[in-house]
Amino acid sequence: MSTAQAKVVYGADQPFQSAEIQRRELHPHDVLIEIKYAGICHSDIHSAKGEWGPVQYPFVPGHEIAGVVAAVGSEVTKHTIGDRVGVGCMVDSCGKCIHCHDGEEQYCLEGMTGTYGSVDRYGQYTQGGYSSHIVVTEDFIVKIPDNISLEAAAPLLCAGITTYSPLRHWDAASGKKVAVVGLGGLGHMAVKFAHAMGAEVTVLSQSLKKKEDGLKLGASAYYATSDAETFKQLAGSFDLIINTVSAQLDMNAYLSLLAVDGTLVNVGAPAEPLPVQVFSLIGKRRSFAGSSIGGIRETQEMLDFCAEHGITPEIEVISADRIDEAWERVLNSDVKYRFVIDISTL
Amino acid sequence: MSTAQAKVVYGADQPFQSAEIQRRELHPHDVLIEIKYAGICHSDIHSAKGEWGPVQYPFVPGHEIAGVVAAVGSEVTKHTIGDRVGVGCMVDSCGKCIHCHDGEEQYCLEGMTGTYGSVDRYGQYTQGGYSSHIVVTEDFIVKIPDNISLEAAAPLLCAGITTYSPLRHWDAASGKKVAVVGLGGLGHMAVKFAHAMGAEVTVLSQSLKKKEDGLKLGASAYYATSDAETFKQLAGSFDLIINTVSAQLDMNAYLSLLAVDGTLVNVGAPAEPLPVQVFSLIGKRRSFAGSSIGGIRETQEMLDFCAEHGITPEIEVISADRIDEAWERVLNSDVKYRFVIDISTL
Repeated sequence: MSTAQAKVVYGADQPFQSAEIQRRELHPHDVLIEIKYAGICHSDIHSAKGEWGPVQYPFVPGHEIAGVVAAVGSEVTKHTIGDRVGVGCMVDSCGKCIHCHDGEEQYCLEGMTGTYGSVDRYGQYTQGGYSSHIVVTEDFIVKIPDNISLEAAAPLLCAGITTYSPLRHWDAASGKKVAVVGLGGLGHMAVKFAHAMGAEVTVLSQSLKKKEDGLKLGASAYYATSDAETFKQLAGSFDLIINTVSAQLDMNAYLSLLAVDGTLVNVGAPAEPLPVQVFSLIGKRRSFAGSSIGGIRETQEMLDFCAEHGITPEIEVISADRIDEAWERVLNSDVKYRFVIDISTL
Repeated sequence: MSTAQAKVVYGADQPFQSAEIQRRELHPHDVLIEIKYAGICHSDIHSAKGEWGPVQYPFVPGHEIAGVVAAVGSEVTKHTIGDRVGVGCMVDSCGKCIHCHDGEEQYCLEGMTGTYGSVDRYGQYTQGGYSSHIVVTEDFIVKIPDNISLEAAAPLLCAGITTYSPLRHWDAASGKKVAVVGLGGLGHMAVKFAHAMGAEVTVLSQSLKKKEDGLKLGASAYYATSDAETFKQLAGSFDLIINTVSAQLDMNAYLSLLAVDGTLVNVGAPAEPLPVQVFSLIGKRRSFAGSSIGGIRETQEMLDFCAEHGITPEIEVISADRIDEAWERVLNSDVKYRFVIDISTL
């Protein structure tokens, strides 16, 4: 075992405390990463508070991890000491099922191992990236392209891939009309990606407060969903809607904005069920779908796409003593557009 | 105007009465059809009772129409007197929008004209097929293949195409696992079609009462949904689920039966919204979709597919004085599997 510094939560509503945690010794295919930056994802908060199911404390969140390889196991071939690397929401999977075989480990039939809050295949409870080091098997580590800084890379590992993957899967491309619901950490990445893929992008946000930002990020239109006129005006307009909001929206209103054969994809995960009016699906052969992060291969593809198109998230780098405050601000939607923890301040 | 005999409803809970109704004079592209058989669809009942929105009385239901061409307008080229023809759920559309252009008139952007309960482009309220004659523009009339009897053809025009279209759209084929929820008028056609398309078909029915029928129709497995074990046993199994039930089922239970990238398509239309747990979509990139009948071209394709594969619905032919009784039996799910009215008894 090796020791790592971490920011730890000891209960649902407890503030962070500094503590030492243990990381496993390197197995032959393991890589020890010295973490440089960790993004703050809304999921960290949901998970730490037990809102998505029971959680075991002490708990270290963080699944947007960027760092440098510090050591490698005896049989590692994919990474070398000093490599700039990233880890996202998962750190392992069965490796044998059809979905692992297809490079979509997030849909592993045995269940993927989450970066935190999971039990790994050594029987240990996984602890996330608000930490100085992490040990991950080499297949679940991606390479960060040279022209992307480590602090900018971190949020790509969850906010990035979570929006990139459904945009690819449902083919956001030239000639397609894509709407992005919510302009937060995920939403602002969805706008950048969809625009870079050639789609015509509209932001649907509660108010027009961030309109200027949205247009700069690549949207060609921006509407307030607090205005009932928006839903009349845009009825039947979109081929694809990416809903990044995990609050309980009126899904039927949003479904009414889809054109024939359009799909609304939720990447936000409200805890309560959403009432869906079946007539709004039938009348235009619409679909209501969900999507979970993306596979490792696709995560690498996304990073390379970012490097090629000069795409990085808008971030606010904070020191580790400000995580509690940052979480508060995330809950109040007061972030443009992603907090990233400078792990050197741990 | 010409006169037709019809079975007419004068109020939401009124029994049928015989009456004369008017059909329009033939415009250049119109065809007068002498109706021989009309299927009884659950939609007829929902509509006549005003459960799907306000309805204007007197009201003549019926959108599964099979008959013979009795007269043609001056510019009709597609049909000739004596042709065996069918009319389904729609009798017109704008003819200009992208969906009409693509042969999917059911998704016409101006709204298709329903066979009954619509206002047509001459400003007249449309009246359906429980009637001796109907006038329809030639483009909305399909040809009934020689080896399909008129009484068997009638239910294909709604129950047939409503299930055939989503099975084609979501690619029910060899290697695919398809479940059909509900073994009624639509469900029994879905089983026959999916089986003929090469898919492995499972019926999910409330009880095992119709199990023997289901297996004869082409299913290779049959489960009772009243048994909670069914949902455990079949979790994550199906590529496609066609839900033909318009009652309020627990959608999350059914969504849990889908494999990764699976789709549950509702062709039944419950009036109340269905609560959907977003996590059940996200975890396996599942979709919840709806589908409405099919275009005219696809309806013809479906009839030709039936002719080729020897597929016809299981029907019970009744005389016109038994429609009220048949409606009662439909409401009690006491029909194997479609009532067809012999219009000669009108």
